Amino acid sequence: MAIDDATLEKILERIDDQLPQALERLKAFLRIRSISTDPAFGEDCSQAADWLVNDLVDIGFDAKRHNTPGHPMVVAKSPQQDDSLPSLLFYGHYDVQPVDPLELWKREPFDPVIEKHNGHDALFARGAADDKGQLMTFVEACRCWKDIHGALPPNITLFFEGEEESGSPSLVPFMENHRELLESDLALVCDTGMWDANTPAISTMLRGMVGEEITITGPSRDLHSGMYGGPAINPIRVLTRILGELHNDDGVVQLPGFYDGVTELPEKVAKQWESLDFSETDFLSDVGLSVAAGEKGYSVLQQIWSRPTCEINGISGGYTGEGFKTVLPSQAVAKLSFRLVGDQDPDKISKALYQWVEERLPADCEVSFKSKDGSPATVMPIDDPVFTQAADALEAEWQKPAVFAGCGGSIPVVGYIKDILGTDSLLVGFGLDDDAIHSPNEKYNLSSYHKGTRSWARILQAISTR
Amino acid sequence: MAIDDATLEKILERIDDQLPQALERLKAFLRIRSISTDPAFGEDCSQAADWLVNDLVDIGFDAKRHNTPGHPMVVAKSPQQDDSLPSLLFYGHYDVQPVDPLELWKREPFDPVIEKHNGHDALFARGAADDKGQLMTFVEACRCWKDIHGALPPNITLFFEGEEESGSPSLVPFMENHRELLESDLALVCDTGMWDANTPAISTMLRGMVGEEITITGPSRDLHSGMYGGPAINPIRVLTRILGELHNDDGVVQLPGFYDGVTELPEKVAKQWESLDFSETDFLSDVGLSVAAGEKGYSVLQQIWSRPTCEINGISGGYTGEGFKTVLPSQAVAKLSFRLVGDQDPDKISKALYQWVEERLPADCEVSFKSKDGSPATVMPIDDPVFTQAADALEAEWQKPAVFAGCGGSIPVVGYIKDILGTDSLLVGFGLDDDAIHSPNEKYNLSSYHKGTRSWARILQAISTR
Repeated sequence: MAIDDATLEKILERIDDQLPQALERLKAFLRIRSISTDPAFGEDCSQAADWLVNDLVDIGFDAKRHNTPGHPMVVAKSPQQDDSLPSLLFYGHYDVQPVDPLELWKREPFDPVIEKHNGHDALFARGAADDKGQLMTFVEACRCWKDIHGALPPNITLFFEGEEESGSPSLVPFMENHRELLESDLALVCDTGMWDANTPAISTMLRGMVGEEITITGPSRDLHSGMYGGPAINPIRVLTRILGELHNDDGVVQLPGFYDGVTELPEKVAKQWESLDFSETDFLSDVGLSVAAGEKGYSVLQQIWSRPTCEINGISGGYTGEGFKTVLPSQAVAKLSFRLVGDQDPDKISKALYQWVEERLPADCEVSFKSKDGSPATVMPIDDPVFTQAADALEAEWQKPAVFAGCGGSIPVVGYIKDILGTDSLLVGFGLDDDAIHSPNEKYNLSSYHKGTRSWARILQAISTR
Repeated sequence: MAIDDATLEKILERIDDQLPQALERLKAFLRIRSISTDPAFGEDCSQAADWLVNDLVDIGFDAKRHNTPGHPMVVAKSPQQDDSLPSLLFYGHYDVQPVDPLELWKREPFDPVIEKHNGHDALFARGAADDKGQLMTFVEACRCWKDIHGALPPNITLFFEGEEESGSPSLVPFMENHRELLESDLALVCDTGMWDANTPAISTMLRGMVGEEITITGPSRDLHSGMYGGPAINPIRVLTRILGELHNDDGVVQLPGFYDGVTELPEKVAKQWESLDFSETDFLSDVGLSVAAGEKGYSVLQQIWSRPTCEINGISGGYTGEGFKTVLPSQAVAKLSFRLVGDQDPDKISKALYQWVEERLPADCEVSFKSKDGSPATVMPIDDPVFTQAADALEAEWQKPAVFAGCGGSIPVVGYIKDILGTDSLLVGFGLDDDAIHSPNEKYNLSSYHKGTRSWARILQAISTR
């Protein structure tokens, strides 16, 4: 144990006292427009990395910016070493999602303000929950630890990337080239959610992901649909036809071999999930829906956590502005993502999609694909004692047992940490279902920020074996 | 006959001499960014109307701008009256299509330049062929007529609108309120094409049109496809499925009742079209295609001229920018247009589409429609002597018989002129298949402009009975 219980109590008090200052720091961080997927915001991403380095150096970390062909990495090390305690690698990302459609935001996405939301104080800004607010819970816990204890927690490496929302192209090469810098006994990843606003969770299953952009080209240029409509093939028509056949009436994905490696959930786990206080009705009605639209015969939790999906994330072609334009376009584009579970192989699924589209391509059409690096699903070793230690620390803070949950989203870094560094991850996060991450009006509850910071102080004290 | 043959010859010489000045006037007109469908260009449309009024007053017309709830109308009358000759209403439009995708233009769309294209001099600019260049052929013919003859051709009314590319919302109310101003024995419409660069054409069949925008709404806000993918219905998936079923494998539109009122082409006309010097291979290969994609069993000319179509002109939903974004969007939108023939009823087709979509809408989805005013198909009375007179005048100019052609595009005003004013239309235009109207790099051949102007002088002399 790095500190005794009395010191921990003082650290928790310090976190309470310093909340206003911690919020000001987060707001300053949120004002940086670090949208990684859009090249126009490259300078902002660089600025966000520098902001982190400066803040971490202030606290006492040995922090450095590492340039990459994409956005920079930030790696910071605690100068304290204690061989009797496990070494920890904390991962987060400073980049954020794009903000479109901008007109649906009630306020500027990069001008953070605190407002009431469903009776709770929340900080509204792009990145408030995903992931700037989350990563700062750990940084603020370290800051207060240092303030009280006089030294940072030992054996800690912080690792922040700026490309998580754009496929992390630099992550694997960087990790492969900096194994020694990053190697640790356990990784801590703060990019997930709570079970509900009062109940903490540790994510123990993560869906993997495949991203594919499909471009179908027909005529060599845009045509007038009066002069060519009929004899000229319309790539939007081709694309909608192909995409329209991807699911059957029961929501089952039709790509041959898609379900290879998908295993049914063990009955024990299924029962645990059934016993959770989860209302399918509330989950759906919160976003204006009433009927689960996934595979028939599976509960909503299974559809999100343990079943694979195929979604169309974007489609475009022809004239999409105001009014009408009788164009027969040369191209149509769709962006697809697949969420993977069990042992589904990302490469095989990409190849099955290519074949599916090519087999359905009519004469005179061409198709091209652009891939986002895929990642398989991950399942955590929940019998490891650190999981129990972390769960106990979370229960002490929230006064409720931590749920061992699944996670519908993909966190590819967890797979890379396992594959490249040989390290398992403990996924603890304080996001909520209504945080609207990736959507307009993203927010992070003040209770998530405050008690999240306190939770990390407790976890840092609790993790003592590895 | 309004003038004798010697005077006509002098007018034709004057047209030859004045071509450079006529081109400068057209360039000035093309520099005005009169995109009617985008409200951002309202002032430009107003400017284009004023430009026309000024030019027509210069020539000697009694020209006026008439404001409407949309873009203004321009009506100009020749002060000359001759009851022994038919009265003529010349229609054109000064508005143009949007210019996107801008990156495919080789030069600024509104900075007209003359360059070689396939060995011919052509003027490149948005609107060069559709319809500014075409309407100016008639204006320039009147100008030279006046220069030589000392007076404008008698009984002429010019009628220009600025909403043709955006559904002409003000056209019908304006025509209904100005019947007396516009009533004429025959309408001349210059918004169509030649058979080829050397062969003139009179369009005698026009397809009608229905335009519908479909918006499908699922979740009440954009969602993260990891957190909601599976249980949450994806409106892009719904839209692609519905649109993908609109045609069968033979290209036949599946809407119930869609083919009501469609008649097979009379064998005599079909044979005439077959005898035309038309290469399906060339027509398709010109735009990078090799196989006619319309209804099986019909020739390319039939697919364009005498068969109805359903085209998707635009589709959008979710993230469509650079890179990937794992969004599950709240909405997806498609813009459709139907080309109609024979007695197909635009209203019935809109209703069939509404029912088709609603029947296929899954739980939790809503649909809304936005319509563009529809128009039925039109068939001209080609036995009327004016068609022979015009055809003879065209043959005199081009030294080739005029083709009595169909027209795949829709010119709704022809239906309105018939319905509201009781007047038939003579459709003569000088556009070419490679003019790229509605596409990047639109152009108008100098030969179209020059010999088109000469053609109108000849037609104005030739039309003497009604």
